[in-house]
Amino acid sequence: MEPNRVHQVKIRPRMTADELVRAMGQAGAFNGGALARACDIYEEMLRDREATRFFGLAGAMVPAGMGGIVADLIDRGHIDILVSTGANLVHDVIEAIGCHHVHGTAVCSDVDLRDREINRIYDVYLSDDAFIRLEEFLQGVFADLPSDRPLTISGLLAELGGRLDRGILATAARKKVPVFCPALQDSVLGLQFWLFSQTRPVVVDAFRDMKAMIDACYGAERAGAMLIGGGVPKNFILQGMLLTPHGFTWAVQLTGDRPDLGGLSGATLDEARSWGKLTAEAQGITVYGDATVTLPLLTAAVLERLDHG
Amino acid sequence: MEPNRVHQVKIRPRMTADELVRAMGQAGAFNGGALARACDIYEEMLRDREATRFFGLAGAMVPAGMGGIVADLIDRGHIDILVSTGANLVHDVIEAIGCHHVHGTAVCSDVDLRDREINRIYDVYLSDDAFIRLEEFLQGVFADLPSDRPLTISGLLAELGGRLDRGILATAARKKVPVFCPALQDSVLGLQFWLFSQTRPVVVDAFRDMKAMIDACYGAERAGAMLIGGGVPKNFILQGMLLTPHGFTWAVQLTGDRPDLGGLSGATLDEARSWGKLTAEAQGITVYGDATVTLPLLTAAVLERLDHG
Amino acid sequence: MEPNRVHQVKIRPRMTADELVRAMGQAGAFNGGALARACDIYEEMLRDREATRFFGLAGAMVPAGMGGIVADLIDRGHIDILVSTGANLVHDVIEAIGCHHVHGTAVCSDVDLRDREINRIYDVYLSDDAFIRLEEFLQGVFADLPSDRPLTISGLLAELGGRLDRGILATAARKKVPVFCPALQDSVLGLQFWLFSQTRPVVVDAFRDMKAMIDACYGAERAGAMLIGGGVPKNFILQGMLLTPHGFTWAVQLTGDRPDLGGLSGATLDEARSWGKLTAEAQGITVYGDATVTLPLLTAAVLERLDHG
Amino acid sequence: MEPNRVHQVKIRPRMTADELVRAMGQAGAFNGGALARACDIYEEMLRDREATRFFGLAGAMVPAGMGGIVADLIDRGHIDILVSTGANLVHDVIEAIGCHHVHGTAVCSDVDLRDREINRIYDVYLSDDAFIRLEEFLQGVFADLPSDRPLTISGLLAELGGRLDRGILATAARKKVPVFCPALQDSVLGLQFWLFSQTRPVVVDAFRDMKAMIDACYGAERAGAMLIGGGVPKNFILQGMLLTPHGFTWAVQLTGDRPDLGGLSGATLDEARSWGKLTAEAQGITVYGDATVTLPLLTAAVLERLDHG
Repeated sequence: MEPNRVHQVKIRPRMTADELVRAMGQAGAFNGGALARACDIYEEMLRDREATRFFGLAGAMVPAGMGGIVADLIDRGHIDILVSTGANLVHDVIEAIGCHHVHGTAVCSDVDLRDREINRIYDVYLSDDAFIRLEEFLQGVFADLPSDRPLTISGLLAELGGRLDRGILATAARKKVPVFCPALQDSVLGLQFWLFSQTRPVVVDAFRDMKAMIDACYGAERAGAMLIGGGVPKNFILQGMLLTPHGFTWAVQLTGDRPDLGGLSGATLDEARSWGKLTAEAQGITVYGDATVTLPLLTAAVLERLDHG
Repeated sequence: MEPNRVHQVKIRPRMTADELVRAMGQAGAFNGGALARACDIYEEMLRDREATRFFGLAGAMVPAGMGGIVADLIDRGHIDILVSTGANLVHDVIEAIGCHHVHGTAVCSDVDLRDREINRIYDVYLSDDAFIRLEEFLQGVFADLPSDRPLTISGLLAELGGRLDRGILATAARKKVPVFCPALQDSVLGLQFWLFSQTRPVVVDAFRDMKAMIDACYGAERAGAMLIGGGVPKNFILQGMLLTPHGFTWAVQLTGDRPDLGGLSGATLDEARSWGKLTAEAQGITVYGDATVTLPLLTAAVLERLDHG
Repeated sequence: MEPNRVHQVKIRPRMTADELVRAMGQAGAFNGGALARACDIYEEMLRDREATRFFGLAGAMVPAGMGGIVADLIDRGHIDILVSTGANLVHDVIEAIGCHHVHGTAVCSDVDLRDREINRIYDVYLSDDAFIRLEEFLQGVFADLPSDRPLTISGLLAELGGRLDRGILATAARKKVPVFCPALQDSVLGLQFWLFSQTRPVVVDAFRDMKAMIDACYGAERAGAMLIGGGVPKNFILQGMLLTPHGFTWAVQLTGDRPDLGGLSGATLDEARSWGKLTAEAQGITVYGDATVTLPLLTAAVLERLDHG
Repeated sequence: MEPNRVHQVKIRPRMTADELVRAMGQAGAFNGGALARACDIYEEMLRDREATRFFGLAGAMVPAGMGGIVADLIDRGHIDILVSTGANLVHDVIEAIGCHHVHGTAVCSDVDLRDREINRIYDVYLSDDAFIRLEEFLQGVFADLPSDRPLTISGLLAELGGRLDRGILATAARKKVPVFCPALQDSVLGLQFWLFSQTRPVVVDAFRDMKAMIDACYGAERAGAMLIGGGVPKNFILQGMLLTPHGFTWAVQLTGDRPDLGGLSGATLDEARSWGKLTAEAQGITVYGDATVTLPLLTAAVLERLDHG
């Protein structure tokens, strides 16, 4: 088969995820081609036993049911360092303590929802009750925290994970994978911790987690980044290389943003080369689209490949 | 399993396309949830033996290798009427006469490409040579056309398909599926036909194809629309109902456009209800994203379901 | 002032449109910078007395109130050839015969709107009554058309414009500016003409307009293209150069689409260079965004410059 | 004039920004209509002497020359609380110490740029030299910081602003407007501070700024939010109301994101009502598009209105 040629896709019933992705790769164009390329890069990154794998998690991925994929990747040993928005961790804890997000519709009256004590995340609904139970859980954990020394954000998150038995924080705690969340204040978790801090002399050092992050970048033989969305997680992972002589060797970005607006979230991974965040030879690809489609497909294809040895 | 709850996705190696889509459907949020819903609607539409199925094809789908899916759907009897942009048919003929699109890169000098006689479609390249061979083929077919009466565009396309042995037009001709292309002039096929018309007194009646289209809408027991992209194909299919007392019963739209710009291509299918193009009870869903990802996944999942009987 | 430097924008009350655009140009980044560059290109194109200016009109621009800008540009002699979607012309006639679009909301029940006989275009509403009055007007004009020879689409549109006293078609008819609409069938105008054609032996030759279009491209000393949205108008204008040894010298595109989906509507103007549609030296720029914002601002800035002589 | 009717836009040379926006408002559709509505809301919010005005700054606004608008709004007393990404503040300091961003192009070799020690932000370039000078400045300021007690992030930023004579931080320090930056670690400023913290026992309390933020929300008679982009600034401002019985009375969002991806950055302001972040009666509008276009136009129109008394 000529590798350079666009092959018209041929669908066969019962194709596996990887068979489908390989067909997309032979077509090879636009974001379908990029997704196939992303699978190749992610596979290589996961197969390299000496690589350090960073995972950035932005967007409302846990409310959308994608948290299960992240927890599973941690469990399988495919994530060494997780950087997340605060919101994803809030919703992870909510699910882990037994509350549920439910399917709704985005075409609705939000004033009515407020009257019914329902919070909306596009077409996902969550009742106020979940936040009440979250508060009980969090305040209970916070009350047990040591207050004689400054805490780190990752330490605080590990404490939470240690009290939970499922989800991202629980799995990360069990597997000793650090979870960084530079903007934890910017979440209900942050609001709850702040409430707690009004009653107790606790200090969380905003900068202390950076040492572990930068050490991980400095010490990495080779490093790879899987970035879901942009935001703080993307930048915090990529900037980790700025203080080192290294750069990322692999990077995959699944995002719905666009480059021409100039923001970091939509910036190409090529742009990151100019900053030295990726090496000149690095393999990097951006797949534009909704990660609720691309992440399951990419993960299923790559786990299928790894399963084959 | 509670149907209304967001289930965190669990990936297992070797999941089939439909298993993956069903997992997305249990997560059920954002465009992943929409894609799962689209599979349900498309499955129902294909299973209904009395339904008339319209298929709209816009965007550079054939250069991207998606033409094979369309030809296959025609071959399996899942498309009764195809409406396409001219460009997709141009590239379908180019592939059918043995020329190929090849993988390139979008980050390049287009002036260099011009010097090298390469035409770019984002990250797909096509050499000028293909257009020379296309011209030879087309002028040969045109020379055999009857010139004693006005032609229809679909008739012209059926003539082309009848001389080809693979691809969309060939399969449509073999299966007697009409192909409508209201803006055929707006393509290299149109340019070539116009060149031919300078030497021969041929007339193509712009409006004569509308009768078959509107009759199909009028006569449909139930009608479904699968819309890839927007543009003329989407509108031409949906407007077919305006002169009838009916509306579409099912509609699925795979598009990268967005509704807030007000254009028809990004308009929701709900908007089409206000016009009476969809019935009040119709099932309609839009999946936002690149069809080079969503079309293969949707097709694989639905063919898998149909294969199971 | 260093031309190459990003200057922080300084807003002064009562800035004119052009002063504002020039400030954006000194900032010079992202789409604000592109818009300033677009003004420079459009100004140069309009000042060149020997240039032929093409204007492509896609998207729901007339329902959004942008038709007034297009009519005014024709009236001022700034458009030599207009290529439009059918829908914009339908809504232009609707306004010209005294019906109005009204402000609505996109968050609504489209089933309710249908019950109230209101058709929605994102947040613009139009009553069924407008289409009844449109039908009366059109059928009256059609009845007077000659039926002894094939018509052209532009001829049909000129007949309509000749019976109207305001709007795009009226102004184009008065100024003898040809209006091309390759996919006229794909509109309510097309549906109405088809209904008429069921009662009378009229033929509209789909290809005859191409001669005027290609002659205009062939004969142009220099040619410029202003493209609002993509679709058929963009392609039909740009492809006009494929049969000539020339290319466009200037091109400006205002679009909300994105290049990575591979479709022509979002394709960069650089891509058009690889096809020879733009010359290697052509000045071309794409401004990504909603034309209901960018078109008024660009037009106001450029007319202000021309007004200064 | 009928207020509900779409008026076709009429451009006159030398229209001021506000005249242009009012014409867009009479057209009233899509994002042009939304921008006009945003001006009305922002005007009302700025005219209300008892309102507290929050301003969220995400996206690469300072490299794009939009920082001048923000500094000017602070200077005019129109911003009471600023929440920013770290990156915007980094680039604000860079400009304030006399370094410049320059115009480049996004179609380039990023590997070449790296060799030339140039960092790219879409089509804006910044040399490595700027970061060397930034380091000198920052380390000098940091060395003077008190180390006997935990610092706040806003306190640290006020120290920086106090040593500068222009730009956002300088103006905010002069006008005593607090600047919050929850994810300061996620920026070069954060990296530099962390380097400093390796040599000195300094602690920055991640949560201490929340008190001032929440007190501001709690104590506001009425509150308004102007949100440029999404990210941490948007969420941190809106979540401030969650611990109060109040909600925002006015909110305007200028963003290029889209709601269907489910992320907070693209979420509608209606969604925020379901959470109680906006009141049921609040006036809120989202203008989709690039803020390098919409922010200057909106600001110019509103300052023009305020200037008229």
